[in-house]
Amino acid sequence: MKTLLILAAAAAATPAPKPALAPSQIVAAAPKGDWVAIAASDLLVMDLASGKRVMIQLMPPPFSQGWVGNIRKLAAARFWDGTSINRVQDNYVVQWGDATEKKALPNGLIKVPQSEYVVSAKGAFVSQVLEDPAPAPFLFPGMRYFYRPSTADSFRVITGFARGFQFGQGDANRDGIPTWPVHCYGMVGVGRGMPPDTGTGAELYTVIGHAPRHLDRNIALVGRVISGIEHLSSLPRGTGPLGFYEKPEERVTITSIRIGTEVKDVPRYEYLSTESASFAAYADARANRRDPFFIVPAGGADICNIPVPVRVSK
Amino acid sequence: MKTLLILAAAAAATPAPKPALAPSQIVAAAPKGDWVAIAASDLLVMDLASGKRVMIQLMPPPFSQGWVGNIRKLAAARFWDGTSINRVQDNYVVQWGDATEKKALPNGLIKVPQSEYVVSAKGAFVSQVLEDPAPAPFLFPGMRYFYRPSTADSFRVITGFARGFQFGQGDANRDGIPTWPVHCYGMVGVGRGMPPDTGTGAELYTVIGHAPRHLDRNIALVGRVISGIEHLSSLPRGTGPLGFYEKPEERVTITSIRIGTEVKDVPRYEYLSTESASFAAYADARANRRDPFFIVPAGGADICNIPVPVRVSK
Repeated sequence: MKTLLILAAAAAATPAPKPALAPSQIVAAAPKGDWVAIAASDLLVMDLASGKRVMIQLMPPPFSQGWVGNIRKLAAARFWDGTSINRVQDNYVVQWGDATEKKALPNGLIKVPQSEYVVSAKGAFVSQVLEDPAPAPFLFPGMRYFYRPSTADSFRVITGFARGFQFGQGDANRDGIPTWPVHCYGMVGVGRGMPPDTGTGAELYTVIGHAPRHLDRNIALVGRVISGIEHLSSLPRGTGPLGFYEKPEERVTITSIRIGTEVKDVPRYEYLSTESASFAAYADARANRRDPFFIVPAGGADICNIPVPVRVSK
Repeated sequence: MKTLLILAAAAAATPAPKPALAPSQIVAAAPKGDWVAIAASDLLVMDLASGKRVMIQLMPPPFSQGWVGNIRKLAAARFWDGTSINRVQDNYVVQWGDATEKKALPNGLIKVPQSEYVVSAKGAFVSQVLEDPAPAPFLFPGMRYFYRPSTADSFRVITGFARGFQFGQGDANRDGIPTWPVHCYGMVGVGRGMPPDTGTGAELYTVIGHAPRHLDRNIALVGRVISGIEHLSSLPRGTGPLGFYEKPEERVTITSIRIGTEVKDVPRYEYLSTESASFAAYADARANRRDPFFIVPAGGADICNIPVPVRVSK
């Protein structure tokens, strides 16, 4: 009985005629040139009192830059030092910030309007998409810089990848193509009150369950956890409403949150270019598992089933 | 600054003209008659050495009944008593069973063929679907007993609900409509080796991350966790390959796994009938959040974003 290795990638598969590669094998074989360095200045380094570290890659322009700018100011002002993780809701989010709600925010934060939840993609960002439809494998028709993982999406939008992140897109209008980041596992967002412009970036959360895509376009997304999410996702669930911890002593203290350039021992991270041939092959394999364990390839995948590979630079 | 209550349901919303109900409010208002009792004989009660309890509802006929039958025999034989949780892979699965792989299986387990991964729905199961298309809200055209949450699905199949569970369906053929349970958060499946008929049911896993739907039709699903999944999803992640615990002492001991009828203090659970009007309204609200926090309803939802509500009977 050798059932322990279920769900296994094709690591040590039967020799056969040449088994199809598993997604992880395609990523491992990607040439150095297909990887894009993540600048230390685009990292948010969260250190917990437990000694655990969580790394967040901030959202690239032109998305959510008002909030990202606020977050840079909050980190520079050491706003989060001594704050805590206050909410852990199963299959939903982990949320952190100032539980007292009394700590003064640093000067210079801007109020970001609701309109910033969606960017009208145009010009440099999508011109190559529209004007340079490269040959693409099965699931990526007609787009080079905005790959679509499937012609169908359960949320009735076009989804794809650009600049290392996952996005949704609506129909083109006179302003361009409305484009927004989507709530996949590990994405980091900005808590807010009822009015859509009330989130500063001081209160953040990350997704630790099935992608809550109903939040897309309703809350700002400012990045994603690229390392250490297990230190958040394995925390005890809060027993209060919405998964908030009921007792102050249950909260997990945050020692500090810094931009990567302020931290000495930050590894150099890189992501697999979402414009690379390796990524296209990887995404296609995620949507159509043909490695030996599988008997029925799905024939599609939702955007959040195709996480963008990230590694420490070799 | 009142940002702590982000992502909030409309519990104490503005009084306004009558705000749309949140999904949780629709469920709370569902009449008693819209709830279906889950028989204790269809529960699998897992008790951990930590004192925590996990409740699993077994898959209803005609799905996966070969494995479900094996699981009943394994529980009756106390096979799992003293076994352990051996694998916790972030954003994927928690897996349990006999880590030694040496424990004798009880007599009478059957070898379930690959063909059982998919049921050809026909006769009583779907005749009402096809012959009795009741009026349905936006997202549920033409089906009463097999609701479709969206006309699109990223995995290119029809998805819907029946008998309290989520399913995928392919195109009809002469045998009927191929139908299979899908890997949503909390679903419980049967570990296997490379050959598809090698899973007995002795090695089980549950999903603790974004729905790994590429496993649909590739592994048998036998139920879902209806209570206590946080005792599994918050376990420390294994640091070995595939998230297996590297040291025996990291494993979490299972005191016992029993069918509900063998356990004294099991509450009476019930699920919101997936054939009820309340469920249709709930699913529609999940796909189109109009309660006050939301500014853009999604206009769709994937099947795993519409968990079937379960509660202890009132």
